[in-house]
Amino acid sequence: MNEEFASRLLENAVTELSRLPGVGRKTALRLALHLLRRDEAEGVALGQAIIDMRRNIRYCSVCHNISETEICDICSSPRRDHSTVCVVENISDVMSIERTRQFFGVYHVLGGVISPMDGIGPDALQIDSLVERVASGDIGEVILALSATMEGDTTNFYIFRKLAPYPQVRVTQLARGMSVGNELEYTDEVTLGRSLLQRTLFTDSFN
Amino acid sequence: MNEEFASRLLENAVTELSRLPGVGRKTALRLALHLLRRDEAEGVALGQAIIDMRRNIRYCSVCHNISETEICDICSSPRRDHSTVCVVENISDVMSIERTRQFFGVYHVLGGVISPMDGIGPDALQIDSLVERVASGDIGEVILALSATMEGDTTNFYIFRKLAPYPQVRVTQLARGMSVGNELEYTDEVTLGRSLLQRTLFTDSFN
Repeated sequence: MNEEFASRLLENAVTELSRLPGVGRKTALRLALHLLRRDEAEGVALGQAIIDMRRNIRYCSVCHNISETEICDICSSPRRDHSTVCVVENISDVMSIERTRQFFGVYHVLGGVISPMDGIGPDALQIDSLVERVASGDIGEVILALSATMEGDTTNFYIFRKLAPYPQVRVTQLARGMSVGNELEYTDEVTLGRSLLQRTLFTDSFN
Repeated sequence: MNEEFASRLLENAVTELSRLPGVGRKTALRLALHLLRRDEAEGVALGQAIIDMRRNIRYCSVCHNISETEICDICSSPRRDHSTVCVVENISDVMSIERTRQFFGVYHVLGGVISPMDGIGPDALQIDSLVERVASGDIGEVILALSATMEGDTTNFYIFRKLAPYPQVRVTQLARGMSVGNELEYTDEVTLGRSLLQRTLFTDSFN
């Protein structure tokens, strides 16, 4: 035991808390002491919520988003367009896209992107199950909504080739261009180039 | 359930995490998703460490610092000076003072300071037990090491009066003055005034 902590229980909690992203040892200590100052019930509730989530969370067997049921609410909704599948990296991307209220199709969560540097190959991701969905279903469009990074592009390209045997499926990707609200002067030249090449017809409706 | 989260388990974890100081709802979601990406064992270990700490932590029956045993390592050490008691607000203050390696006495953790604004009166703090220690023991000096705030000063004064019936005990407080490394120009005038009034004899040893 590190003498400083006076209690193995405190030290252990600090060690585990400091594994969280962006939480250093000092912050972990601050969090632990906060929990000690508050009611016992509050600390136990936090610990139990983390354990419950980690032990019992389920993933939709169709789209691999987190779910309360075998098939998630989106995949089982009759109000969603099941012929349009939006491919995303992870769960939080589903939340981001849902928040836009501009998408009414369904999702397919890959669980990451291909990244040889991090030892993540295509087999670690839900790519085969995506191909199966496309092969077996009435899917008309697959929207690739991955990050605009090299890893995202690699994954896009890999999926695009995997879907080549199914020419009835339109494969699209998110538009790349200037961020809404950004000034032209501060937009990098690669993005600006893309924005030019993929310019769209001007309309007077705000979209 | 908030629709955004797709799972009550995730939502619950996010809610509990966002009760931590400095953790907003966005950060809480980031932490929860991080835990979902990592091994189940890591998340369970964090949850369990928090529960264990909150349920089983013990406090020293003498000084009220956290402890593994009935009486903490400091209070039971024969190498510490048991006639000098340093009064601090909370557990982390003990750690701070221990880190200075300048104090060889024992502690008394109040559990806070008197703060009418927050509804904390003297009865909520370990002041009576301090008076008992002084009344029953061979204590020669009580060092008041509270924050240099109005609440700290109030508490200092309260304790000072409570210890008045024991004139054999010297009551001291931490020196207030310029921080080491600070420039005079940027020291506030109250602190500078104190530094002047409480000036010490110059010696050529670095202390």
